[in-house]
Amino acid sequence: MSTVITEFSRVPENIVHQYLNLGVATVHEAQGRKGLLSSKLRPIYRPAHIAGTAITCEVAPGDNWMIHVAVEQCRPGDVLVVSPTSPCGDGYFGDLLATSLVAHGVMGLIIDAGVRDIATLTRMQFPVWSSAVSATGTVKESLANVNSPMVCAGALVYPGDVIVADDDGVVVVRREEAGPVLEKSRAREANEEEKRKQFENGELGLDIYNMRERLAAKGLKYIK
Amino acid sequence: MSTVITEFSRVPENIVHQYLNLGVATVHEAQGRKGLLSSKLRPIYRPAHIAGTAITCEVAPGDNWMIHVAVEQCRPGDVLVVSPTSPCGDGYFGDLLATSLVAHGVMGLIIDAGVRDIATLTRMQFPVWSSAVSATGTVKESLANVNSPMVCAGALVYPGDVIVADDDGVVVVRREEAGPVLEKSRAREANEEEKRKQFENGELGLDIYNMRERLAAKGLKYIK
Amino acid sequence: MSTVITEFSRVPENIVHQYLNLGVATVHEAQGRKGLLSSKLRPIYRPAHIAGTAITCEVAPGDNWMIHVAVEQCRPGDVLVVSPTSPCGDGYFGDLLATSLVAHGVMGLIIDAGVRDIATLTRMQFPVWSSAVSATGTVKESLANVNSPMVCAGALVYPGDVIVADDDGVVVVRREEAGPVLEKSRAREANEEEKRKQFENGELGLDIYNMRERLAAKGLKYIK
Amino acid sequence: MSTVITEFSRVPENIVHQYLNLGVATVHEAQGRKGLLSSKLRPIYRPAHIAGTAITCEVAPGDNWMIHVAVEQCRPGDVLVVSPTSPCGDGYFGDLLATSLVAHGVMGLIIDAGVRDIATLTRMQFPVWSSAVSATGTVKESLANVNSPMVCAGALVYPGDVIVADDDGVVVVRREEAGPVLEKSRAREANEEEKRKQFENGELGLDIYNMRERLAAKGLKYIK
Amino acid sequence: MSTVITEFSRVPENIVHQYLNLGVATVHEAQGRKGLLSSKLRPIYRPAHIAGTAITCEVAPGDNWMIHVAVEQCRPGDVLVVSPTSPCGDGYFGDLLATSLVAHGVMGLIIDAGVRDIATLTRMQFPVWSSAVSATGTVKESLANVNSPMVCAGALVYPGDVIVADDDGVVVVRREEAGPVLEKSRAREANEEEKRKQFENGELGLDIYNMRERLAAKGLKYIK
Amino acid sequence: MSTVITEFSRVPENIVHQYLNLGVATVHEAQGRKGLLSSKLRPIYRPAHIAGTAITCEVAPGDNWMIHVAVEQCRPGDVLVVSPTSPCGDGYFGDLLATSLVAHGVMGLIIDAGVRDIATLTRMQFPVWSSAVSATGTVKESLANVNSPMVCAGALVYPGDVIVADDDGVVVVRREEAGPVLEKSRAREANEEEKRKQFENGELGLDIYNMRERLAAKGLKYIK
Repeated sequence: MSTVITEFSRVPENIVHQYLNLGVATVHEAQGRKGLLSSKLRPIYRPAHIAGTAITCEVAPGDNWMIHVAVEQCRPGDVLVVSPTSPCGDGYFGDLLATSLVAHGVMGLIIDAGVRDIATLTRMQFPVWSSAVSATGTVKESLANVNSPMVCAGALVYPGDVIVADDDGVVVVRREEAGPVLEKSRAREANEEEKRKQFENGELGLDIYNMRERLAAKGLKYIK
Repeated sequence: MSTVITEFSRVPENIVHQYLNLGVATVHEAQGRKGLLSSKLRPIYRPAHIAGTAITCEVAPGDNWMIHVAVEQCRPGDVLVVSPTSPCGDGYFGDLLATSLVAHGVMGLIIDAGVRDIATLTRMQFPVWSSAVSATGTVKESLANVNSPMVCAGALVYPGDVIVADDDGVVVVRREEAGPVLEKSRAREANEEEKRKQFENGELGLDIYNMRERLAAKGLKYIK
Repeated sequence: MSTVITEFSRVPENIVHQYLNLGVATVHEAQGRKGLLSSKLRPIYRPAHIAGTAITCEVAPGDNWMIHVAVEQCRPGDVLVVSPTSPCGDGYFGDLLATSLVAHGVMGLIIDAGVRDIATLTRMQFPVWSSAVSATGTVKESLANVNSPMVCAGALVYPGDVIVADDDGVVVVRREEAGPVLEKSRAREANEEEKRKQFENGELGLDIYNMRERLAAKGLKYIK
Repeated sequence: MSTVITEFSRVPENIVHQYLNLGVATVHEAQGRKGLLSSKLRPIYRPAHIAGTAITCEVAPGDNWMIHVAVEQCRPGDVLVVSPTSPCGDGYFGDLLATSLVAHGVMGLIIDAGVRDIATLTRMQFPVWSSAVSATGTVKESLANVNSPMVCAGALVYPGDVIVADDDGVVVVRREEAGPVLEKSRAREANEEEKRKQFENGELGLDIYNMRERLAAKGLKYIK
Repeated sequence: MSTVITEFSRVPENIVHQYLNLGVATVHEAQGRKGLLSSKLRPIYRPAHIAGTAITCEVAPGDNWMIHVAVEQCRPGDVLVVSPTSPCGDGYFGDLLATSLVAHGVMGLIIDAGVRDIATLTRMQFPVWSSAVSATGTVKESLANVNSPMVCAGALVYPGDVIVADDDGVVVVRREEAGPVLEKSRAREANEEEKRKQFENGELGLDIYNMRERLAAKGLKYIK
Repeated sequence: MSTVITEFSRVPENIVHQYLNLGVATVHEAQGRKGLLSSKLRPIYRPAHIAGTAITCEVAPGDNWMIHVAVEQCRPGDVLVVSPTSPCGDGYFGDLLATSLVAHGVMGLIIDAGVRDIATLTRMQFPVWSSAVSATGTVKESLANVNSPMVCAGALVYPGDVIVADDDGVVVVRREEAGPVLEKSRAREANEEEKRKQFENGELGLDIYNMRERLAAKGLKYIK
């Protein structure tokens, strides 16, 4: 049986918005190196950077019917996350669906499959992270689930989770961890800012991070 | 025996030119979802969009000799389509050959292999769709066929067929179908324009395409 | 035992600098088609073009510790070349390490692995050729060698060799051959300039390179 | 923080054992086409067929330390499921670890990474499904989680779930669904047995499944 | 419009049968190195060797409906050739369909997609060459063409053509060339038999094929 | 200029022979985890296990001419190692060349490219590790080097080095290190034999290797 879950909790807007200032690598580190989607997902144009709440949408291979179902569940600030039930690189999504998502305030699309009309999507500046670009169209014959927990590109995504995506890739933050991870991400950024200045001054990581002793202990030898 | 076919019918210029206003996805749909080359072919720069008549050129692996033979067969408005007889990612084509093609009025190159000098090709704005970028050079030792029917990146191409290529990929339209497919493509575009307005107004695909009843009949359940 | 070689000969600066005017394809051809790194290495932004002297750095899979060790060995004009001891696409390198390399005058990074913070690296215009982009971080636990001879992306690199990288890929020139290969590269470029003019005039490669007789001898047939 | 969960419910033995008579494709279909691990997991020898309860084990790239931790958590009838936190094809597992697992009654190994000593593993008839074969060894430096819910090869696995693996691949059945899915799988098998006889008699799927009318309605044309 | 062509000429049985004694590499060479399907097609068990007449069957991604339609068109001695209209690795074919094909005298299956139940197919000794193994099932919703000319794994196949498949791969011989290619293949085999004896006697290819002079002319140097 | 080096030192036979009792993983570990060729090289049949001295042979893409040149340089006990100058999966090697190698006492073939006639090679029990299987033939037009140092599948190989290959892959041992690595490999094997007994008795790696304290120190937590 295929279902559409119509109500679920989203991470509050005021928290999600603050993720816009944070890079995917920072968030991934801050939450203990989990939640990263596969690096096969790449943005169709660069630079691109979004943060929003996940709508999850399974699709059958070569069949984009459920994306139309999912659009109705989207609210402003959401990110649509689409995963095929078996690997498929067809062009599930194009400029008409993007127009529809824009009209409903959706921030962008994450899809472990193909997209098309990417020249238009780029002109529209509608950000998409996909695992393929393909002009191949899809049919509308098979059902699947919307807003069920779903694995997308190797990561488990629940509806309402935070999705952050930038030129490095895509990361998901569990709804209930969105607050603490935000704090840790900011702390990490502040710390990086400090380090950046040291590096700019020509200081070495070997000294900044006190690595020399441990390297020697492990047996590293310097030879002329 | 390797042959060069020197005379064949091309789709008339006035028809080919009109394909320039049509996207690959549109044309692919309009002709019943056939003729798409593999999505492994990607443009070396974006945006890029061409339409022209095919010159087909087989090449041996690591050997670009026949490209020189094919250039002589090109006329203004042609697109050179190159396919190796076994998979090869070497750099078959660079800025000198591009200069030669430009001098003969060729619109662009489609090659299921590698190209090089892509910084120069980009500056020249000579559009290329390839399956690889590689500085590896090739030799000039083995013959193959020019302007025979040829499979390129999974699609059958005849000389004189229409080739349309854009950021989404590459599609071939059979010479004898070029007129009707053009009509269908335009009709499709007009229809999409209408749909686009509906989507901009926030209407849902579910309603525009009357999907709700069929989804329910298939068993889709909405759950709070 | 893991070692860091701290002294070795570099190709003289005045020679290395002249490679900046030469493309990778040209250098590769000029030295007899050797020394090309795998075409899986791609620049994170385009156009990009560097030439410098190699610092070689092995790293363990998922472990970037030795990059910090290698930075200390870098001098202005060097290019850092990193290769994992087994295949790994993790994000070994980001904007902090780039800041450190810039502070030490390093020209760019060649890495047969992943990098992250590519939006920032692009803004900094710090050129990187990598086989992957990934936000995945790495640990600092395992030793490896710095400035030993090393295979990177299929090519053998010695510290002090010349590295040239552009939009087509990456090539290494052996230290002791840097002078003669420079001469041959320039001769090749001069010759190409001449050929380019012929091609611009519409002359055919068939005639410029005197191919017609040899094609006929091999059995090529022209058919109407 | 890395954790080892030492207690959790397993699907009862008498249910798990019955899955041994069922193929992966049958189970996958019976549970509504979910729970299949990526087809990149292949058995190191064929035929091979196991069913058991999952022990989940994350590992760092190039680091098999946690496998040693996981072994202690295994009981007779378990299947060890291993997933790296970022993609890695190193040889995490060889004949010594297999000997250890056999001593603790483990049915087999599922690993989205590489294994080695496969000649010995084959002689031992210790079944392994892996995404790679590699002699590359690993280190023991980094922690990760044992018996946490984990995505392996694209599917979510909880400790105690049923794992079924055969020549076609690997499927996971959620612990709480193990009973009903067993019943459905058997019903499916019984039905297939009937169908097999019809096919052996030369009857066509077109007739057995009553497809002709629907094909005609969709517009299929037969042409001489 | 999707069509099924029900009548077409097949290469006569007495010719096809004789291809069973010929390897794919031999036939490929004998017909001038054309007609080879991509090497991504691999037999599910080895050794395997078949020759038969092609039935061509397009399928939609994730949809095996047309295979049922194609079975009805098969006659004893045919080989079923299946190609998806866009790349798909799902398990289109299993033991029930194999039972059906066996009942109709079909020699084997060539499919540029996935198959399942391969343990049973192996026990049945029903030979299959596929580009994937996957337990993922398919739906029956979309039409496509049967017995139209079709590109499969990069090669053009017409219904009635000869298909030869062995451990090396799959080759197609055009219907009208089946006789002459058979003769050339046999001549080639006879010649190889002679050569084999010379090689067994320790003679070198350098001498058997008179290569020394040409190697020297090209500039090969022997150095102590 | 292409050269054939006709004289070089080989590791003595009495040392090489003793490598036949050692697995690739053991040798790789014993020499400090270096010298492993890429795991893309797989044996055409299993089990297979050889040890011998390397003859190195570069080949042009799609061109096996130099293999004929290399055969003449082979002596009993050698292993032929072949690497294309750019990536190529064509079938460079078949049963005739294998017959020639057998006649000259060669132990097996390592090739980072394709081979064909694998059914016959399997019947002959001539062991081959290749990165592809393909019926595609090659030409004899381009020169390359024989017995120069050469990178094959990511590892540097000198003529006369020891090559060990088994079901796990292929490793090279530098000529001058062949003796000491043999000793270390044997010591490692002896140690593994001891460990194997402990594992058979049900002892845990956690205890055998004294891991518990270090795991706790790193912060591993056990949770019910």
